[in-house]
Amino acid sequence: MKAIDYASKSPKEVRQAIRNKEWTGPTAGMAKGHVQANLVILPKDWAYDFLVFAQRNPKPCPVLDITEPGDPEPKLVARGADLRTDLPKYRVWERGELVDEPTDIISCWRDDLVAFLLGCSFTFESALLDAGIPVRHIECGCNVPMYITNIQCVPAGRLSGPMVVSMRPIPAHQVPKAVLSTGRFPAVHGSPIHIGEPSVIGIKDINRPDFGDPVPINQGEVPVFWACGVTPQAALMASKPPFAITHAPGHMFVCDPKDSDYAIF
Amino acid sequence: MKAIDYASKSPKEVRQAIRNKEWTGPTAGMAKGHVQANLVILPKDWAYDFLVFAQRNPKPCPVLDITEPGDPEPKLVARGADLRTDLPKYRVWERGELVDEPTDIISCWRDDLVAFLLGCSFTFESALLDAGIPVRHIECGCNVPMYITNIQCVPAGRLSGPMVVSMRPIPAHQVPKAVLSTGRFPAVHGSPIHIGEPSVIGIKDINRPDFGDPVPINQGEVPVFWACGVTPQAALMASKPPFAITHAPGHMFVCDPKDSDYAIF
Repeated sequence: MKAIDYASKSPKEVRQAIRNKEWTGPTAGMAKGHVQANLVILPKDWAYDFLVFAQRNPKPCPVLDITEPGDPEPKLVARGADLRTDLPKYRVWERGELVDEPTDIISCWRDDLVAFLLGCSFTFESALLDAGIPVRHIECGCNVPMYITNIQCVPAGRLSGPMVVSMRPIPAHQVPKAVLSTGRFPAVHGSPIHIGEPSVIGIKDINRPDFGDPVPINQGEVPVFWACGVTPQAALMASKPPFAITHAPGHMFVCDPKDSDYAIF
Repeated sequence: MKAIDYASKSPKEVRQAIRNKEWTGPTAGMAKGHVQANLVILPKDWAYDFLVFAQRNPKPCPVLDITEPGDPEPKLVARGADLRTDLPKYRVWERGELVDEPTDIISCWRDDLVAFLLGCSFTFESALLDAGIPVRHIECGCNVPMYITNIQCVPAGRLSGPMVVSMRPIPAHQVPKAVLSTGRFPAVHGSPIHIGEPSVIGIKDINRPDFGDPVPINQGEVPVFWACGVTPQAALMASKPPFAITHAPGHMFVCDPKDSDYAIF
């Protein structure tokens, strides 16, 4: 099976396949039309700081669900799911260092862990594609280019750091439509935070992203920047919590709601 | 001085007048065009539950700012302000009971208190008025009618309760515009949650609101319901925290941002 074979499956079927280890790869394209989410799991002691940070920086940190301490079921977005088994790959962190990359986290689950699910760009990329706007890194079959900016997030407790942005080159005449079609989704990063002029936000070389892969910007295209879900993870890891678990890049949690459930108009 | 005399003052000037006890009345109409906010102050021990409740119920609980424990300055929305003195009237609660209604809270401030500022309907009422849509309770010079619904909020920790809604009668042909003009402000309650058919959300008699004042619904008008900021306060008070402070109804905190800063388009 390929990811595309799961495009028409329900989120529950996809999660079951992942739980059964029938699928261990990236989730892009699975259960098409349904929201996928970034995962951050922290001890309760760190959950408040993380939540305040998210509230103060809603564009890079759109929180979709928060579990009760010790409970691995995200009741708001996937009743019956189990966050310990229903993602294909995880990353386990100790004091900000990556220590393991398991396919489930049954053995390291604890009663004091709180899981946060955060919106990811897959939702608004679907909106761009639906609006007839090309998404370059999908065309290229590579990861989206991401950049550390000179925009400082509003700090909260032990968490602080720069905003990380993702970039998509958009034909100049389609930039307004790209703004409006993603602005409909404020719960999943929403409208761009910057359009054109990368140097203004501290990007020295657009061809050398800090994360992901470079993509070509063609004649007549403008680089458009959206707040990126890597921002909270980077701020978190920089502050070195004793223990944390995240999804492995690209290996997201498939939620029940549809992308359109997060559109405000 | 009347509130209207403060319409053209800056938020900082209004807060200074309140701090000096030159103004002790309701804040509607002051520093026109600037956001006003509901205030909830809780011991740190209760802050996490409250924040999770707000995140799970974003329409009735739009969080605009959260202070650091013990720090009365809301740095995001009013740098230099002091939440202990800059509202005209407060309510002090012990185990869910109202025990005092002071004009400042200097004497009961504590190092473990966290303040939450929540969006209030003044912002979207300005948007309605700007769109040429009448706001009945403003025309009548009374409080907005509010109703306890049969819609249950998503619980969080010790907090649970029904959603409270406010109602504005809107001429049928202007209902679409009312939806769109308030939908632009998802950070301050956003679009309505229900239009027409009050009985569906458990409202037995539209002429007997649970809070506020009844208003006439004229021929050709439809009752339109928005999620109300009373929801989080009611859920909180029902769970009887040992200590809490809120604003007194109508006596809001005047923030620096403009209403338009919270518009997403």
